Amino acid sequence: MTETRKSYHQELDELQEEILKMGTLVEEAISNAVTALKERDLDLAQRVIDQDDIIDEMELEVEQKCLKLLALQQPMAVDLRIIGTALKIITDLERMADHATDIAKTTIRLQGQPFIKPLIDIPRMAELVQKMVHTALDAYVSQDAQTARDMIKLDDEVDHLYKQIFRELLTYMMQDPSTINQATYLLFVAAYLERVGDHATNLGEWIIYMVTGERVELND
Amino acid sequence: MTETRKSYHQELDELQEEILKMGTLVEEAISNAVTALKERDLDLAQRVIDQDDIIDEMELEVEQKCLKLLALQQPMAVDLRIIGTALKIITDLERMADHATDIAKTTIRLQGQPFIKPLIDIPRMAELVQKMVHTALDAYVSQDAQTARDMIKLDDEVDHLYKQIFRELLTYMMQDPSTINQATYLLFVAAYLERVGDHATNLGEWIIYMVTGERVELND
Repeated sequence: MTETRKSYHQELDELQEEILKMGTLVEEAISNAVTALKERDLDLAQRVIDQDDIIDEMELEVEQKCLKLLALQQPMAVDLRIIGTALKIITDLERMADHATDIAKTTIRLQGQPFIKPLIDIPRMAELVQKMVHTALDAYVSQDAQTARDMIKLDDEVDHLYKQIFRELLTYMMQDPSTINQATYLLFVAAYLERVGDHATNLGEWIIYMVTGERVELND
Repeated sequence: MTETRKSYHQELDELQEEILKMGTLVEEAISNAVTALKERDLDLAQRVIDQDDIIDEMELEVEQKCLKLLALQQPMAVDLRIIGTALKIITDLERMADHATDIAKTTIRLQGQPFIKPLIDIPRMAELVQKMVHTALDAYVSQDAQTARDMIKLDDEVDHLYKQIFRELLTYMMQDPSTINQATYLLFVAAYLERVGDHATNLGEWIIYMVTGERVELND
């Protein structure tokens, strides 16, 4: 094994570590965003918003690293899939962090307004999508396509909760127009979490591709 | 120039043609989705939904082509940027088509309900984002970073319209709770169009990168 080859594999390992680090930050962002909403913690919401710049920066760095690796090496088969997957995964991760920021901004907009009802289903939805992201990162590290497949199945539950929240909030608005402003913002929060579930599904699909070489579309 | 080299450049040209074709389909999807909503044309809405599979398929094809080009050739500098950009651009295009589908599904959900008011600002927003996508594709073909920069500026107008529509629909809901169901769906349509504007901004940023080698973040 030549020196170049070794350093190339080191760089691949580093790439995966950076993605894992980015993924962990994104997972935290989602969790913190919903905690901040639930507990009306404006400082925590602001931290999620500030943190987003770091995640954006990480996306750019990993992206540059992938493009350099592709240019300077001539990766084949599985290595190529690892780099191609990295380029895609960071897009989904970055988008999830954007949605965490959207939720944090909503928390700041709703400051001072007491909740029209205790938040139960939105935190449940958040727990589910967080679990999806966490499981996806585990599957990514262990290169485990089956875990990725199982994780994707959770998205049905997320979609189901979303529809339930949507119906419930509409009912609130219709029964009491004074809830409209807040209920609308909460609707959007639920929609952001539903999208996070879609992005986690994308992660799963990419991990399956990385491991098996097969591109599947399990998200509809 | 060797035979391989020539065929490699042919493949790069083909790649850009396919992206342009995909982009044109996406532009049509956005335009058709909003026309279908405005004119309550359920057949057209269904066509947008059906067409989405074709766009998804194109994304996978271009993606595979990019990964193969990266693996089999050893692209440097600008060629590498062209392929890296292609991989990112198709993600944004596919996401825009998803939002066109979301709008088409809304049209089907709202069937039979007369509009609470004539749709004016949503079609205006749609025209703007469609113009952004069209201009981005022009800038992509002509490799024109300045056009991409000018295009991105339109996103401020899109965001402005979005906020206006949001406020207006909230007011409708508060004044007349019978409008809540429809107004909520229209709010989401406006939010989808706002996201399309964000994705068009991403296209612009990628085109600037492709031409200049500089990664900029003009979207906030």
